[in-house]
Amino acid sequence: MRVLILGGDGYLGWPTAMDMAAAGHEVLVADNYLRRRIAEATDSEPLLATPSLSERARIFRAVSGHNISVRIVDLSDADAMFDLVRGFMPDSVIHYAEQPSAPYSMRGFNEARETFRNNLDVTFNCIWAVKEIVPECHIVKLGTMGEYGTPNIDIEEGWLEVEHKGRKDTFLYPRAAGSLYHTTKVLDTDLLWFYVRTYGLRVTDLMQGPVYGISTPEADLDPRLCPNFHYDDMFGTVINRFLVQAVAGVPLTVYGKGGQVRGYLNLRDTLQCVRLAAENPAKPGELRIFNQLTEVFSVNEIADRVKAVGDRMDLDVKIESIPNPRKEKEEHYYNPTHTGLTDLGLKPHLMTDDVLAVMLERIIENRYNIQTDRIMPRVRWNG
Amino acid sequence: MRVLILGGDGYLGWPTAMDMAAAGHEVLVADNYLRRRIAEATDSEPLLATPSLSERARIFRAVSGHNISVRIVDLSDADAMFDLVRGFMPDSVIHYAEQPSAPYSMRGFNEARETFRNNLDVTFNCIWAVKEIVPECHIVKLGTMGEYGTPNIDIEEGWLEVEHKGRKDTFLYPRAAGSLYHTTKVLDTDLLWFYVRTYGLRVTDLMQGPVYGISTPEADLDPRLCPNFHYDDMFGTVINRFLVQAVAGVPLTVYGKGGQVRGYLNLRDTLQCVRLAAENPAKPGELRIFNQLTEVFSVNEIADRVKAVGDRMDLDVKIESIPNPRKEKEEHYYNPTHTGLTDLGLKPHLMTDDVLAVMLERIIENRYNIQTDRIMPRVRWNG
Repeated sequence: MRVLILGGDGYLGWPTAMDMAAAGHEVLVADNYLRRRIAEATDSEPLLATPSLSERARIFRAVSGHNISVRIVDLSDADAMFDLVRGFMPDSVIHYAEQPSAPYSMRGFNEARETFRNNLDVTFNCIWAVKEIVPECHIVKLGTMGEYGTPNIDIEEGWLEVEHKGRKDTFLYPRAAGSLYHTTKVLDTDLLWFYVRTYGLRVTDLMQGPVYGISTPEADLDPRLCPNFHYDDMFGTVINRFLVQAVAGVPLTVYGKGGQVRGYLNLRDTLQCVRLAAENPAKPGELRIFNQLTEVFSVNEIADRVKAVGDRMDLDVKIESIPNPRKEKEEHYYNPTHTGLTDLGLKPHLMTDDVLAVMLERIIENRYNIQTDRIMPRVRWNG
Repeated sequence: MRVLILGGDGYLGWPTAMDMAAAGHEVLVADNYLRRRIAEATDSEPLLATPSLSERARIFRAVSGHNISVRIVDLSDADAMFDLVRGFMPDSVIHYAEQPSAPYSMRGFNEARETFRNNLDVTFNCIWAVKEIVPECHIVKLGTMGEYGTPNIDIEEGWLEVEHKGRKDTFLYPRAAGSLYHTTKVLDTDLLWFYVRTYGLRVTDLMQGPVYGISTPEADLDPRLCPNFHYDDMFGTVINRFLVQAVAGVPLTVYGKGGQVRGYLNLRDTLQCVRLAAENPAKPGELRIFNQLTEVFSVNEIADRVKAVGDRMDLDVKIESIPNPRKEKEEHYYNPTHTGLTDLGLKPHLMTDDVLAVMLERIIENRYNIQTDRIMPRVRWNG
């Protein structure tokens, strides 16, 4: 299968590219290094330096024999997107090419506009390039569980059957996200759904929870192949960030009451889910939505788990509640369905103490890279 | 009240500006003439030539004594939007500044991108300019009943209480629009709702049905003040278009079975609704949504009404079903609630035979301007 990965330099894009190539697919990755530029500009570089995409592709070919083609290109430019798709004629497009930081998207007008334009324009161009050039191609789009927010009813898998005044219909599950970044993904979903039902495109929209992890079979072949591992307030997802805080001797910073519940998954499971989706495409005219998570935790539960494992490794972990920089419910109902990917064959890697301990060891090896001043929240939702 | 009208050159924007000025408000209108340019480029000029905004403002001042300030500016440029808002410090922004043609938005990639960018960027810039400069200012946004599509349950006024597995929550009413133009308004609503609940903005989002009419108290003062009256396939709303077809001796072109039901309103009632909304603002942190329509008709019912009135005026009106250029249900359930604006004081002008007859007379006076080759659909949804 010819697999085009948009945003192939990212935390998930790069390991996905290696996983797909190792599975025998022909892989082309595209990226404009937007996340790298923002990370540099906001003093938020990852824990481990990551070589350029071309360099990583060379290293990966040397150690694995698998080829990954690389194109550095701005996909918010429609001509670039059309040229890319016309040149590669993909069977599957995996679309990660979005500015992924919620705090960055909430920092001010310029950051909001950059996030809004990049994310919407890339999705728009992707839809059109597929529709015009390879209409049978399957788009696998990375959405987020954050699109749903924290509703007071069970979160179904993308769709909701509503009975109202004795009549019934099925709708996209209502969405109400907590940041502009997450809201751009709500808008993406609306846009994809319009074009799917109007032109019969094939789309899988993956509502993914926060991902943790650094290790994948291919990333472990060479340290320079590891995904960009962020622990800062901009790009660091909460579990990764807590583990670094545990190693750095910085108290784990729980935002507010810590009762915020979310669905999480291991990086290895992201790769499984995306590959399962790509290898089992949606039907023409189908917007297939999966909730991509394996376990549900509150922030307090995660902090307690990290502390327990860290303390056993003599890290003396402290937990501290700080004022919540975000606008979100700190105690709420949360019950997401997530059976679709399991039905396709997902075998979860759960967040065991061993998994956390191995991650802590890797971070300890690189503890001298930790910059503690990029951990505390630098953006507040209320300005 | 200081009222800033975005898109003040439009079919609704211009008569709204005159209505607001006549009501004693201080009015500034802004427009980039996008609709004029598209109308010229697609051979879709209105039935009656409309002078430039500045010229119309001069005429209006001469005949009424009321002042309307005019700024020709592209509001998809953030600096221009910020400058405009900073210079005027509005109490109310009425946002009509969107590319309003569904067929144009479905014509091809360039038209889709132009619609998508203009509509989303103007809304985004409007939100930010208000949030940063005049956070107490009330935004009155023109949405469309088309955002809802044709669901199989009653269409409530913007919001839907859902009971699911024994639990309850209230959500934005699900939306599934029938064109990219309508979809941009769905995305606008999502974006407004995010910024309202995050920053406490005050917004009224008006889900308006198709409007018909040419006469308003101010527009009737001088023929050069009439709103741009389109009868073409791009910008002509169905009732206006059928009336012109009746006069031109072209069969009324019903798309498909003609069972498509929508909510309609007279141009005079748009002015009432918008002024009622502006003079009774939403509260801080409130996204107030009204369904803006007064009557519900199927396309067949409209065709029959126009034929009956036209035949009485010796017009010999014919009705002809043509293949539907759109992708839409031609027979469906449709029951929209619309009590909010009535509760605020709306006194509807219904579509009586007299109203249709007066419109027909006005069109007959100008029958030599009718270009019949711009009536048949030139854009098909399936390409």
